[in-house]
Amino acid sequence: MILKQLCIVKKSKNNHNLMNKFKKAVIVGIKESFLDAESWQKIDGFVDSKVFVLPDSTEMTDNLSDADCLLLNFGVRIGKEDIDKAPRLKYIGVLATAYGKIDIEYAKEKGVIVSNLAGYSTNAVAEFVLAAVLGHIRQLEEGKRRGKQGNYSEAGMAATEIRDKVFGIIGLGRIGGRVAELALGFGAYVRFFDKIRKPELEARGVKYEEADELISQADFLSLHLPQNKETEGFLNAQRIQLLKSGAVVINTAPAELVDINALAERLAKGDITFILDHSDEMRKEDLERLSKYQNCIIYPPIAYITAEARIAKQRIFLKNIEGFLKGSPINTVS
Amino acid sequence: MILKQLCIVKKSKNNHNLMNKFKKAVIVGIKESFLDAESWQKIDGFVDSKVFVLPDSTEMTDNLSDADCLLLNFGVRIGKEDIDKAPRLKYIGVLATAYGKIDIEYAKEKGVIVSNLAGYSTNAVAEFVLAAVLGHIRQLEEGKRRGKQGNYSEAGMAATEIRDKVFGIIGLGRIGGRVAELALGFGAYVRFFDKIRKPELEARGVKYEEADELISQADFLSLHLPQNKETEGFLNAQRIQLLKSGAVVINTAPAELVDINALAERLAKGDITFILDHSDEMRKEDLERLSKYQNCIIYPPIAYITAEARIAKQRIFLKNIEGFLKGSPINTVS
Repeated sequence: MILKQLCIVKKSKNNHNLMNKFKKAVIVGIKESFLDAESWQKIDGFVDSKVFVLPDSTEMTDNLSDADCLLLNFGVRIGKEDIDKAPRLKYIGVLATAYGKIDIEYAKEKGVIVSNLAGYSTNAVAEFVLAAVLGHIRQLEEGKRRGKQGNYSEAGMAATEIRDKVFGIIGLGRIGGRVAELALGFGAYVRFFDKIRKPELEARGVKYEEADELISQADFLSLHLPQNKETEGFLNAQRIQLLKSGAVVINTAPAELVDINALAERLAKGDITFILDHSDEMRKEDLERLSKYQNCIIYPPIAYITAEARIAKQRIFLKNIEGFLKGSPINTVS
Repeated sequence: MILKQLCIVKKSKNNHNLMNKFKKAVIVGIKESFLDAESWQKIDGFVDSKVFVLPDSTEMTDNLSDADCLLLNFGVRIGKEDIDKAPRLKYIGVLATAYGKIDIEYAKEKGVIVSNLAGYSTNAVAEFVLAAVLGHIRQLEEGKRRGKQGNYSEAGMAATEIRDKVFGIIGLGRIGGRVAELALGFGAYVRFFDKIRKPELEARGVKYEEADELISQADFLSLHLPQNKETEGFLNAQRIQLLKSGAVVINTAPAELVDINALAERLAKGDITFILDHSDEMRKEDLERLSKYQNCIIYPPIAYITAEARIAKQRIFLKNIEGFLKGSPINTVS
């Protein structure tokens, strides 16, 4: 399959595989580089006659009338009006965990199955949490800076350890759970808050605490809540006040969990550190405001990016499509 | 006790504690800032009449004739001639793990007990190994650089994970063993080479391999051998050739374990990364040579520096002195 901005591929009919196939797939926003060649080949194999690849949603609507499959990159918006323009649509595959821009309720009403990618970057994000925390508490940046300058003095450098510290986790889902496992490995006192209890991890020593209690105890605090009406502003002004002096807070979850004004006020006191990697989804003015504080460490959104996650992402994306075609859809959200 | 460059403290005799005490302690190279005030007070309590604190060994010999206790910082040299000048000497306490500059054989011959600090920085060093490896494989420095510049793009950034990788450990002593535990927590395939087998860690999944076999398999390789005639140049030219392309090697052990010429040659190929933090004990020309390679990351000697290690260090140092005075010396090396 040769990929162009818009390409039409007529398929040969000599495929004797009995698996159902789509008639026409429209692919939106998934650049050639996002998937390996073998993955593109497999997608090609899932479609009987035509595959349209569009760089973004501009020309999408013109191509929906006979499409039975839509494959979307992260963030592509699919509203009621789009679904109405695609009367043959059976399946939407999202190359992301987030699917908030798709009208899931309406898709469900129309019998369209939507699959997302759950868990492909769980371990990538969890290891990043430990990496970013350790990088900070061991002053790796300052150490490297000195090394590059030929200054091999450790004078004035300070560091702490994770062992025997309270490592708090807000939201003990897949990623939070994996962070808990890693923190246990370091010998931290791992505590969590979640709206549901987690017997399996609790049996391994991860202790439940009420949110405020946990926030006031934590030496390290990692946020792993999904974003919804209930969780927006979870780390509010009152809770930010509860943070211990010296606490290191890391947010690899949506920025909406945190009250930015209250955070900026606390950062100005200089007694906590805040690490975030969700900069891509934040408002420019919020980023500019936070970046003024030396004790706020802002990463590009790199927590979920690893070679392993890239492989897993494609594997799950393809398995989702295959599952649907074989009559056993997986990772469905509609 | 007031500390000066050279201070003499006459002790009051109203102490009714029945523990034996030293008559005269000479402290060499341990700056006031190296120990907390409470630790100095305790040392004061261990000595009956005089405590001499010397910044270095220049004036040491003049003060040895009636000294029964010598407390030394890392690296202070005590030769046969010094011991001969101290006929009343009973105890040497070293504020370090290394004691290579003390003539231990002669001290033993003269019945002088020497205690060192074993294990005070075990966890500090082990966590640093993970920190430095993660910092590298997650490109934290580049991420922070972008963040500081207001560039929140992850484009072109690459990362890998520790999980499911071969994490090789050369020397499974205290520190190597703790690194093994941490790497197990990450879900790595942890392998080790040591001249003695380690049934306890092996039962937990750390697998023994011959050195060459391990070196050729490792995605990550961490060196934890002590320096001695047998281990010098352990990572020699032939073994450096065995390293996999993409391997990340970290040395928090003495630099003498590695053949610097062979390392430089392999670094020039650009397909491995070498991380070291023992820069303080390396020859200037070796450091300059290695620092030319972008794939050689040189830290000041910060692996062992944590607040927790500082506390443990003082605690063990004082316990050693107390143990000797109570007739049960601990951590003895003579």
